[in-house]
Amino acid sequence: MMTSREQALAIDSDDELAHLRNQFDLPEGLIYLDGNSLGALPRATATRLQEVVQREWGQGLIGSWNDAEWATLPARIGNKIAALVGANPGELVVADSTSVNVYKALSAALELALAAQPGRRRILSERHNFPTDLYIAESLARQHGCELVLADEPGQIPALLNEGDVAVMMLTQVNYRTGRMHDMAALNRQAHQAGTLALWDLAHSAGAVPVDLNGDDADFAVGCGYKYLNGGPGAPAFIWAHARHADHCRQPLSGWFGHAAPFDFTPSYAPAPGSSRFLCGTPAVLAMSALECGVDTVLAAGGMERLRRKSLALTRLFIELVDAHCDGHGLLLVTPREDAQRGSQVCLALADGAYAVMQALIARGVVGDFRAPDILRFGFTPLYTRYADVWDAVQVLTQVLGTGCWREARYHDKGAVT
Amino acid sequence: MMTSREQALAIDSDDELAHLRNQFDLPEGLIYLDGNSLGALPRATATRLQEVVQREWGQGLIGSWNDAEWATLPARIGNKIAALVGANPGELVVADSTSVNVYKALSAALELALAAQPGRRRILSERHNFPTDLYIAESLARQHGCELVLADEPGQIPALLNEGDVAVMMLTQVNYRTGRMHDMAALNRQAHQAGTLALWDLAHSAGAVPVDLNGDDADFAVGCGYKYLNGGPGAPAFIWAHARHADHCRQPLSGWFGHAAPFDFTPSYAPAPGSSRFLCGTPAVLAMSALECGVDTVLAAGGMERLRRKSLALTRLFIELVDAHCDGHGLLLVTPREDAQRGSQVCLALADGAYAVMQALIARGVVGDFRAPDILRFGFTPLYTRYADVWDAVQVLTQVLGTGCWREARYHDKGAVT
Repeated sequence: MMTSREQALAIDSDDELAHLRNQFDLPEGLIYLDGNSLGALPRATATRLQEVVQREWGQGLIGSWNDAEWATLPARIGNKIAALVGANPGELVVADSTSVNVYKALSAALELALAAQPGRRRILSERHNFPTDLYIAESLARQHGCELVLADEPGQIPALLNEGDVAVMMLTQVNYRTGRMHDMAALNRQAHQAGTLALWDLAHSAGAVPVDLNGDDADFAVGCGYKYLNGGPGAPAFIWAHARHADHCRQPLSGWFGHAAPFDFTPSYAPAPGSSRFLCGTPAVLAMSALECGVDTVLAAGGMERLRRKSLALTRLFIELVDAHCDGHGLLLVTPREDAQRGSQVCLALADGAYAVMQALIARGVVGDFRAPDILRFGFTPLYTRYADVWDAVQVLTQVLGTGCWREARYHDKGAVT
Repeated sequence: MMTSREQALAIDSDDELAHLRNQFDLPEGLIYLDGNSLGALPRATATRLQEVVQREWGQGLIGSWNDAEWATLPARIGNKIAALVGANPGELVVADSTSVNVYKALSAALELALAAQPGRRRILSERHNFPTDLYIAESLARQHGCELVLADEPGQIPALLNEGDVAVMMLTQVNYRTGRMHDMAALNRQAHQAGTLALWDLAHSAGAVPVDLNGDDADFAVGCGYKYLNGGPGAPAFIWAHARHADHCRQPLSGWFGHAAPFDFTPSYAPAPGSSRFLCGTPAVLAMSALECGVDTVLAAGGMERLRRKSLALTRLFIELVDAHCDGHGLLLVTPREDAQRGSQVCLALADGAYAVMQALIARGVVGDFRAPDILRFGFTPLYTRYADVWDAVQVLTQVLGTGCWREARYHDKGAVT
């Protein structure tokens, strides 16, 4: 059990991943525990963007689609992300937003499932899945005459699958509000036994925990570029289809960049081979160039297993220190204590005043975020979070809770919460 | 009739818009006639992006969603574009790619049209419309059990409307291959008389020609950020719905940023009021910040009518000079000579060797582009194109055609053409 800041500093000085923090430009004195919402700025990004803007766009102009290889950005960055999530080269592409990709992947999965088993009419997800996934599923359920069934708790999923009428199971591997992580391999097995296709949202997984899409036999996946991949605010997202589906599925956003021969300008659509068919419009070159710098910071760790070890050590330490120092203030740990069920974040519920406590923490330089109605959310990005940061964060949290000074913060509340 | 370069220089020195070129960073000595494909780099963009990356993202981190007003970028830049296309503030938003927005707008229009007149089963467009629009229409036609009907020539459109079974007419105002411009007001009138909704793609219109969406009574519109709006490669696009539809239509890409209360994290979708419902995922902050700089360069002209006058003068001059200097080489003008039917580009067909001629032009510093199978395409962005550029471009074209030296260029051809 850690009892002093010196102990934390000692672990930091032995940390073989400590140097990875130098890849980032972090504000002096800030403890940033919100990389699960917006990853920090890699040092390489500003320079790279200047190069893309001034040399590739400004000087190269239209020729840069070939000369600077803009046209292959979705596949090139896709291959880098593929290495982080257990996908093979060529199987994963970068495109659009996570929400748009959920639409493509869920639509593709539904069409395959309904063609194979026309009687099925259910999409299965969780009530506490990130809302955008549910909104998109609602739209596609309506379009296909399906029903969106929501499990109230993860434990209900196997029974719902066993009812035998679920076409597609769509889950987010690590829950945004609780940090709870599903067992992807087990759920894929259960889904397939029930004749159901499995679609995974890796928004809080990619770059945060080891993912093995092929090894765990998933069917489709999407993920986010601006959280643990450090791609910048609103960075492009990614999409993957298992090789057994990629050449056979159809996605409705059939734009020219997903065409087999976009520059033939033929009036009829013919999908590109494999996952390239998931591209739609012209690639967002500036945003993708920034994303590539972010993905490179994760690749620099030399493997997700190393990051996972540190991530678990950080979240475990945070939980232990909160247990030891914050007793009696009504905090409730909503993130599982079992390592295998925990992503790279820890969430604490506080029935009264969670929003104000988070504002007080932020005012004192500890940045997490608040999720309505009562969740304090802390993300631990192993690339740039130090053990001493965890110690300090809990000290500040203890202080805020103990003095009650956070009650004043209520008067400084802003309307919007992100 | 212009007979010397001095005359062109004299017009440039009298040009009240000449100073607008200083807003751009253009390569020395290059005549860039491809702003209809990728707009040139505004000088302001690099600095603005550095500010967004280093200060807003790097220092402000997650707080910048409020503090740097990232969350309102789609509406703020949307309002600026609205002023260029005859839309009211609040009616137009920036989001996603043009292809994705075609999907949203066409789907919304189709649902409205089919609800009002369930017997209709046709989407009307043109065979020579930009392919991505047709690919998306094909997908939605399939989804709704409709037929995509393609006019071979603009003149066929009224008769096809009069058949009375067209739900939605989807046209690009200025054709990408010919530069021909439709009469939007007249076609909207004809469409509405036939009970048809009108959806316009403004990819080659916004920032290029005056557009009056409300005045001309359009129903839906989308457009591109990286052509005449100078937003950078793959810049975000825009989408507009007439106020009579915006609160009543549904679009299928129902992501969280188009929700009435995204930060309430409710599991059910409820669309935001008006055109905000056309947003889907998290806004692409870096890309939108670059787009804003581009849009500002157009607003600096002080009105589309002033830009239009210069644009027409430039294209007219180009046509006159090609007539005078390039006779006998088999060039065919495919762009209308009538001002009212011409966008801001001029296209010449050349049955044999068009691709090689364009390569030879580019090698000599005159950048247009090639569109299969036989089109030489020249865009004239009035913000940065000078009359002397037009003179020089035709001189180089004459030289390339006359010496036949372009035949050598065939051996340097690259595979991909953008």
